Amino acid sequence: MKFNPVTPEAVAAFTAIVGDANVILPTSADDMLRYTHDETEDLRYTPEVVLKPANASEISLIMQYCNKNLIPVTPRGAGTGLSGGALAVHQGVILSTERLNKIVTIDERNLQATVEPGVITQVFQEAVIAKGLYYPPDPSSRGSCFLGGNLSESSGGPRAVKYGVTKDYVLNMEVVLPTGEITWTGANVLKNATGYNLTQLMVGSEGTLGIITKIVFKLIPYPPQNIVMLVPFRNEEQACEAVSKLFMAGIVPSALEFMERDAIEWSGRYLGIEVNLPEDIQAHLLIELDGNDMDQLFKEAEQVYSVLEQFDIDEILVADTEKQKEDLWRLRRNVAHAVKANSVYKEEDTVVPRAELPRLLHGVKEIGARYNFKSVCYGHAGDGNLHVNIIKADMPDEDWQHKLPEGIKEIFRLVVQLGGTISGEHGIGLVQRPYINIALNEVQLRLMQGIKQLFDPNGILNPGKIFA
Amino acid sequence: MKFNPVTPEAVAAFTAIVGDANVILPTSADDMLRYTHDETEDLRYTPEVVLKPANASEISLIMQYCNKNLIPVTPRGAGTGLSGGALAVHQGVILSTERLNKIVTIDERNLQATVEPGVITQVFQEAVIAKGLYYPPDPSSRGSCFLGGNLSESSGGPRAVKYGVTKDYVLNMEVVLPTGEITWTGANVLKNATGYNLTQLMVGSEGTLGIITKIVFKLIPYPPQNIVMLVPFRNEEQACEAVSKLFMAGIVPSALEFMERDAIEWSGRYLGIEVNLPEDIQAHLLIELDGNDMDQLFKEAEQVYSVLEQFDIDEILVADTEKQKEDLWRLRRNVAHAVKANSVYKEEDTVVPRAELPRLLHGVKEIGARYNFKSVCYGHAGDGNLHVNIIKADMPDEDWQHKLPEGIKEIFRLVVQLGGTISGEHGIGLVQRPYINIALNEVQLRLMQGIKQLFDPNGILNPGKIFA
Repeated sequence: MKFNPVTPEAVAAFTAIVGDANVILPTSADDMLRYTHDETEDLRYTPEVVLKPANASEISLIMQYCNKNLIPVTPRGAGTGLSGGALAVHQGVILSTERLNKIVTIDERNLQATVEPGVITQVFQEAVIAKGLYYPPDPSSRGSCFLGGNLSESSGGPRAVKYGVTKDYVLNMEVVLPTGEITWTGANVLKNATGYNLTQLMVGSEGTLGIITKIVFKLIPYPPQNIVMLVPFRNEEQACEAVSKLFMAGIVPSALEFMERDAIEWSGRYLGIEVNLPEDIQAHLLIELDGNDMDQLFKEAEQVYSVLEQFDIDEILVADTEKQKEDLWRLRRNVAHAVKANSVYKEEDTVVPRAELPRLLHGVKEIGARYNFKSVCYGHAGDGNLHVNIIKADMPDEDWQHKLPEGIKEIFRLVVQLGGTISGEHGIGLVQRPYINIALNEVQLRLMQGIKQLFDPNGILNPGKIFA
Repeated sequence: MKFNPVTPEAVAAFTAIVGDANVILPTSADDMLRYTHDETEDLRYTPEVVLKPANASEISLIMQYCNKNLIPVTPRGAGTGLSGGALAVHQGVILSTERLNKIVTIDERNLQATVEPGVITQVFQEAVIAKGLYYPPDPSSRGSCFLGGNLSESSGGPRAVKYGVTKDYVLNMEVVLPTGEITWTGANVLKNATGYNLTQLMVGSEGTLGIITKIVFKLIPYPPQNIVMLVPFRNEEQACEAVSKLFMAGIVPSALEFMERDAIEWSGRYLGIEVNLPEDIQAHLLIELDGNDMDQLFKEAEQVYSVLEQFDIDEILVADTEKQKEDLWRLRRNVAHAVKANSVYKEEDTVVPRAELPRLLHGVKEIGARYNFKSVCYGHAGDGNLHVNIIKADMPDEDWQHKLPEGIKEIFRLVVQLGGTISGEHGIGLVQRPYINIALNEVQLRLMQGIKQLFDPNGILNPGKIFA
């Protein structure tokens, strides 16, 4: 695909659409900086222009212009992505949705909310909790990420194990297609058997099929009570096994998170929270139960203890106070930041059927030993979703560039062999493209590329993503 | 699209693939009969041949032959559909999945099951309950319908209100494309951000994009306890209002079904169950609560009573015995059969945001008064999914054919205006095609037809369905 540069005429046309204040050129280096990267490794790409439209109509005009003039457009939420999806790898336009940041309605009668894509996830969660309602998906970056980005990457987070991921809460979306056409994808209903599911086709398409401009979410009643506990294991594979055993006992926790020893230690150090692990502790499970009734939760907690008794664990820490709960969650949510602060790293977002976690973890360590890399593993064990953080530390650049990818391929081949796939919630974006054909066969890729072609005949929307 | 007839050479080729015993020709009128109709109205279409392949490989060979020779293929499950999706409207081949009827594995470690599409829904439910697991979707026809058909129509059923519909339980599918290619759509995982969601594109596509040959479902722990109650209302719009109020009070029942007075009376008569409704009762809600703990359920039931006290209701019947629960459920499940036994009818599968139900019900009656038709309404009120059964009774054929469709259009326009759509769980199939552009705009239809073209370039798979 041959694209055209953003000419002064193009900048003038864009300025006429969005106004002077909402156009950033590379000459404003300070303003431009944050649009040159997301949270993926240390990657940097500078676009030719950043545009900050106010609504779907302005986005439509931008897309019509770019589609006609073959200018690539990279949509961007908060830039918290971990697969490079918001990077302007072909330069052109970065289209930021930051000004589409309104919660349009919270409809308590229907337990639905209509929002714009630039609303921060946590802001939305808190707004609905204030009305006794619940929007469960909460990626670790929920304090800064946008709902539109969550949808684009089909984000999950710790509560997915009980409540499902972002895709399970979207009923309908307004999108601007690469051609500039504006359409809704579905209807504001809990069930829909009217034509093909365009809503779920758009979710997780990583900004390659259209730009989300409005979202209708379903909400559920807020479960006000919870119990949070941290369970230390002397053996990390046993920690993984315990996950399956809890489900087989009929327990559905609202979170079930796995952290290797290093994950919790690094995070503690990063946050200045003292963790003081006994020397023989290799891993932890962070378990949360939620509901409406504390008596009921105490009963469930008893069941959890009786399952965990079968394993070689140290004393279970049950959070006594809201502060202690918060600290436990901060430890978990900041593992990625701690790893990032420690070294250049790559994060692989592996996912397998949950009972296969011990085999995956064992395989990752074995591959690491052969390829000479250290990994810090943690993640949403209840979903079989293990984040494998590969630490560069003092690995020579040459090995990091050329040898490590072979090791990553081995991890991904193992994942697929276990019935899993190479991304659970981060997407393929830019950095996992070289591995896509480990997960997808030729038929799948042909269908997906055909869909891309159908939505975006000129290939201008987020080019260079997903497909190799 | 110009199709070719099924020649004697084609029959010979098919016989070589599936064997003599699995080919039915119109000359065997008795054997053929059941393949000429589904449960939609009184429609009849006779195919040129019925084929009963044993597996994906045989289906692939059939599709390769038909694709090359432009012979239309209509896939068929149990034939319980309510939109005519399994009718051979262009003749050609009926491809029955009845021999793909194995439960391949129930994986208790991963809470997953792999099944073939011809497994009867209730057979599967009972097989997993025997292992303490739960597959919640249960369309009213669950005693006879196939899981493959449930997926093709994105079926729901009464438990959808708490547990979601069929689409929410499928992780992965093996499908044969119209070209004969065999592929899986995803991976056996709870979350997947690896390329576009082909799984959800296939779900609800009504057998127009591919033929499902294997399904991987997720399962959940079985909640063994429940409370079932029948609540009589003196005003049917109040019954609809109560639905929203229950959710707003934080209650998530495992079923919340609405039945007009006629629905329950007709069903009682049909089943020989005495119902004896007081004269002033206009409607009922059938409410089920489920969980692991009876004490907890009693608490929830108290909450339900205190919400219902605000309404003008008669005495609540709480089922005392399993037999009484079963009778209440039979009353609900047999409304459609009772209506069918009573008169020729059309069933419209309307769905709206749940708080809009009173307006929808009021609108249906008002439109019925103007177009001179009687309707019996019932359905999954918790989902905003109202089945509107329009009774022919002594309406002249001329009006049934030509005047009634205008009334149906008015109902569907109202549904869309209320934020809903024209099918919640039955699909568009054959009979709702004339109304599709009330629900879908030109952009949506162009994208959907483009997807159809991509998957099925020769248009041989289930032609004449969904699109007008």
